[in-house]
Amino acid sequence: MEGRKPLILIANDDGIIAPGIRVLIEEMVSFGDVVVVAPDKPQSGTGHGITIESPLRYNEVDVGFDCKAYSCSGTPVDCVKLAVNIILPEKPDLVVSGINHGSNSSINVIYSGTMSAAVEGALEGVPSLGFSLLDYSFEADFSVSRKVVRAIVKNTLQSGLPKGTCLNVNIPKIESSNFKGIKVCRQANANWEQEFDERVDPTGKKYFWLTGVFKNYDEGTDTDEWALANGYASVVPVQYDLTAYDSMSELKNRNYEI
Amino acid sequence: MEGRKPLILIANDDGIIAPGIRVLIEEMVSFGDVVVVAPDKPQSGTGHGITIESPLRYNEVDVGFDCKAYSCSGTPVDCVKLAVNIILPEKPDLVVSGINHGSNSSINVIYSGTMSAAVEGALEGVPSLGFSLLDYSFEADFSVSRKVVRAIVKNTLQSGLPKGTCLNVNIPKIESSNFKGIKVCRQANANWEQEFDERVDPTGKKYFWLTGVFKNYDEGTDTDEWALANGYASVVPVQYDLTAYDSMSELKNRNYEI
Repeated sequence: MEGRKPLILIANDDGIIAPGIRVLIEEMVSFGDVVVVAPDKPQSGTGHGITIESPLRYNEVDVGFDCKAYSCSGTPVDCVKLAVNIILPEKPDLVVSGINHGSNSSINVIYSGTMSAAVEGALEGVPSLGFSLLDYSFEADFSVSRKVVRAIVKNTLQSGLPKGTCLNVNIPKIESSNFKGIKVCRQANANWEQEFDERVDPTGKKYFWLTGVFKNYDEGTDTDEWALANGYASVVPVQYDLTAYDSMSELKNRNYEI
Repeated sequence: MEGRKPLILIANDDGIIAPGIRVLIEEMVSFGDVVVVAPDKPQSGTGHGITIESPLRYNEVDVGFDCKAYSCSGTPVDCVKLAVNIILPEKPDLVVSGINHGSNSSINVIYSGTMSAAVEGALEGVPSLGFSLLDYSFEADFSVSRKVVRAIVKNTLQSGLPKGTCLNVNIPKIESSNFKGIKVCRQANANWEQEFDERVDPTGKKYFWLTGVFKNYDEGTDTDEWALANGYASVVPVQYDLTAYDSMSELKNRNYEI
């Protein structure tokens, strides 16, 4: 990257006007040339969804920093695909996604649009980072997040990432003075005990809001949940080969008789 | 399961009126008590998306077989969550998803609504299977698929599946006489080289259809792509811990200086 600044693509899932992406843009402009391609509306929980049944559109918008920015009609993954293949002049040196308003630790990674944008960056062969703050409030304090973002972006621009891997970075809701640092972890074995909030509309028909209680079944001290509960930012390296290698030999011995 | 028939939940991502799910219902009613909860419209490529920004609805529909069936306004994952937590009288003994019209082999697993429904079943602790036929046509020939479905469902009802694992089953587009059997595989290292079909609407504005070329970079003979190209149905055990364990020690040695 001698002779030129790195090209940094920013995406998210909370939409282009969310405070979290503005913090990320503000931090990234000091590291390189920034292009933002983010959803035109909130896309939380869209997972690795892509848009097949309808076409995509994007429009240039002014986000008030020294960068190009576009709002896109699609999902976070669509944003990355459109950016890499249509909008950017060349492949970016880094994809950063977030800063998400709310946790993407442990099992949340598979539902998360923020992390899916980072996984899509990794699939494109670009070092990619997803950042999430454990605070849903749009008035959240991003001061610890800013430090974590700067440290991890600096290291990743210098050293890259292992091939096919991106980082799932979660930041605790914590005062700067209590923050303990950055910890590389594994994804905790945790899950949502789903509940539905049942209501009745004015015409008498039932409808349901998805809700639930988060359950951590993992007692390990090497997990993202442990790190976050103990004042650390968690960094989980994430990959997209879903093969359950440990189960293969048992399954190979089964008799699937046709 | 002595004294009663197994309770089988059927979902998909092509929607409740797709031919593939009708084939699956027809096969499953001979194995147990069937309840269908499937999207009211096509939801291909929705990945592990869930519906957070709007509420969910479901309605009973008649699909013409001896089973209860419901169309749901949400994603395939929403369907499984709603079924397990609201619609079904108890936890099902088996979740089957599909039969998808089109491949969910290799990297397609992360974009696939069909497979996300199966992964969600596994997250609920239920043995879960996703079936896909490598034929996009709604007039596809499902005769090989039927044999594969029966063999794998029979085995899974008898023996269960390793905890936290579901099966990604893909079936080649092939004549019965050329079909070679079922092969347990790993996910191939393959990807989409994305392209966008750029068009102009009647008002002069550009829009883009997502398209692309599938690239298999994997020369292994133990992959799903190899099996499918060689006349086998592929069975990949799938899990949802995305941690890149191989990268952890390298990352732990990095100095993320705050």
